[in-house]
Amino acid sequence: MTVISNKGIIFKSIPKGMPKVDENFELIHRTIDIENLNLGENELVLKNLYLSLDPYTRFYNLNNPALVGQIITGFGVSEVVKTNNPNYKVGDLVNSYGRIGWEEYSHVKADVTSDFIPIKKELLKGIPLSYRVSLLNVGGLTSYGSLMVVGKPKEGETIFVSTAAGSIGQIVGQIAKIKGLRVIGSTGSDEKVDFLLNELKFDAAFNYKKVNLDEALSKHCPNGIDIYYDNVGGETLEVAIDHCNKFARIVLCGMTSQYNITDPKEKYGVKNLGNLIEKSICMQGFTAGNYLGTDIQKEFEKDIFEWIKTGKIIYKENVSVGIENVPKGFIDMLNGNSIGKAIAKLADY
Amino acid sequence: MTVISNKGIIFKSIPKGMPKVDENFELIHRTIDIENLNLGENELVLKNLYLSLDPYTRFYNLNNPALVGQIITGFGVSEVVKTNNPNYKVGDLVNSYGRIGWEEYSHVKADVTSDFIPIKKELLKGIPLSYRVSLLNVGGLTSYGSLMVVGKPKEGETIFVSTAAGSIGQIVGQIAKIKGLRVIGSTGSDEKVDFLLNELKFDAAFNYKKVNLDEALSKHCPNGIDIYYDNVGGETLEVAIDHCNKFARIVLCGMTSQYNITDPKEKYGVKNLGNLIEKSICMQGFTAGNYLGTDIQKEFEKDIFEWIKTGKIIYKENVSVGIENVPKGFIDMLNGNSIGKAIAKLADY
Repeated sequence: MTVISNKGIIFKSIPKGMPKVDENFELIHRTIDIENLNLGENELVLKNLYLSLDPYTRFYNLNNPALVGQIITGFGVSEVVKTNNPNYKVGDLVNSYGRIGWEEYSHVKADVTSDFIPIKKELLKGIPLSYRVSLLNVGGLTSYGSLMVVGKPKEGETIFVSTAAGSIGQIVGQIAKIKGLRVIGSTGSDEKVDFLLNELKFDAAFNYKKVNLDEALSKHCPNGIDIYYDNVGGETLEVAIDHCNKFARIVLCGMTSQYNITDPKEKYGVKNLGNLIEKSICMQGFTAGNYLGTDIQKEFEKDIFEWIKTGKIIYKENVSVGIENVPKGFIDMLNGNSIGKAIAKLADY
Repeated sequence: MTVISNKGIIFKSIPKGMPKVDENFELIHRTIDIENLNLGENELVLKNLYLSLDPYTRFYNLNNPALVGQIITGFGVSEVVKTNNPNYKVGDLVNSYGRIGWEEYSHVKADVTSDFIPIKKELLKGIPLSYRVSLLNVGGLTSYGSLMVVGKPKEGETIFVSTAAGSIGQIVGQIAKIKGLRVIGSTGSDEKVDFLLNELKFDAAFNYKKVNLDEALSKHCPNGIDIYYDNVGGETLEVAIDHCNKFARIVLCGMTSQYNITDPKEKYGVKNLGNLIEKSICMQGFTAGNYLGTDIQKEFEKDIFEWIKTGKIIYKENVSVGIENVPKGFIDMLNGNSIGKAIAKLADY
């Protein structure tokens, strides 16, 4: 039997506010006949093993009218099952840089093969393949790169990380610990506070739903904040600015508090930017691609394998299984209902 | 006659909104007997020649309850008329780093002499002494330092400068021209637009009171903004962010649109900071002291004398004469009623 299932997730409509499984996504039932498929020059067929479920998909893909009706794309890990590309052979593993479909199999056209990077299997010894989805890929690189390049951590300083139990936050916090900083995290449940304190060994953590942020920062950052690693934006950013020290660095990684607000006028207005002058604060945004192919990437790859193998970095994942469950896993991640990095497992390797 | 007039300006009360001459300032009539004044160790008597009238005085000095009832202080140029300090002799000229009183003569106590820097007269050949108030002092240094260090200008880029005819803006714009950038300025009167276009040779300039800023930036910065040099904050900052290119730098120098708003809740909230992520924008504040004593100061001093002498930088001043007129000159500066750097001349040299 050469005709097999190739279910996929279509972007049905632009969400107003938080996406809904039935309203904004559609599971489509297709098939693929890999054996009889004729591949054009340089084309590939990939069996998708893991998908990365990331906040950026909400504001980037799901706000783009041009993408409605198409399969959603993102980061992932796939296995080459058919190839007409001299750079790949059947059985190779590849990392996608944001271009793999939310589908069981992907027919990759020649013009996007540059978005896929071969995975060296020998590097994975003792490391779960799923880590390649994000931690060992752009997720880890951006956490590392942004903390190092924008945050410029110095031993003895204080860093405050919001969404600290999320995919980026947990890495940033642990790297900051390795670098000798005092690490404070905010997160959205008591269970996650426990995770931050007891598993990741943060110096302090709190459930932002249960505290007054201004008071919590006064309590947990008595010497002020030297680095604020911002994943939420809005009012949290404003309050954190008030607690920043002179020459503080604010790393703008994400603004989850604002992503579901579609009318620009309804977004939260930050009123205390004058503080950036008085305290000579540097506030800088970045995107995933900024550190690709730079020296920082080399340093990252050297450090991260070492830190994982020596247990200095631990990594928690929250795995949805099966293509049918990808939209729900994605929305749970946006809602903050899970601890650790949200991924989907589509097939065994 | 050894007893002479020593009038000064007292900070009478914290202004609500724009300061008023009679309400917030008081001219006091005092005398000083220089000949019979006994100086303590290291003390000086200075005859104040020029004062610098700067926006920062509004939010820094005039919002500080602890300073009410005292003589206002700031930057200036003075002549030593009596000295008990081995580092100074009568006739020396000194620059004040923010500590000279708004008064005809200052009796400088030992503990603040470090806030005064001797002026090398040989460097002033052919350059007006008044330039030492700001252009050759912290005003010029901060313009130069912030543009170079935060703005990182590159030939062929576009810079947008707000309050472009002000003391900082006119220097920043001219340095950017020297560095080969396309320079666009906004200012508050048609007369100043003429000044920017015809005297400072900006590539484009507009009167912000007469245009829609969004449209004006679309028109004058068709390739987007690479550096926004912000002197006003608020809505202007928000609109400028929308026009910034990827990897743009925003230099936060001042927020004059917000200084007279005393209730923090009434300040303008900037809603589009998410753009800083999408476009990897770096937004950074600074204060005058940041570049003092650094390598940037040496480069500044080398460049600025050269540029003034070769006519590459021209410098317009707006001079109030006499201590009585200092508050009015200061308020005119805040109101944007004058072209060029606002200074006060208290005495001939």
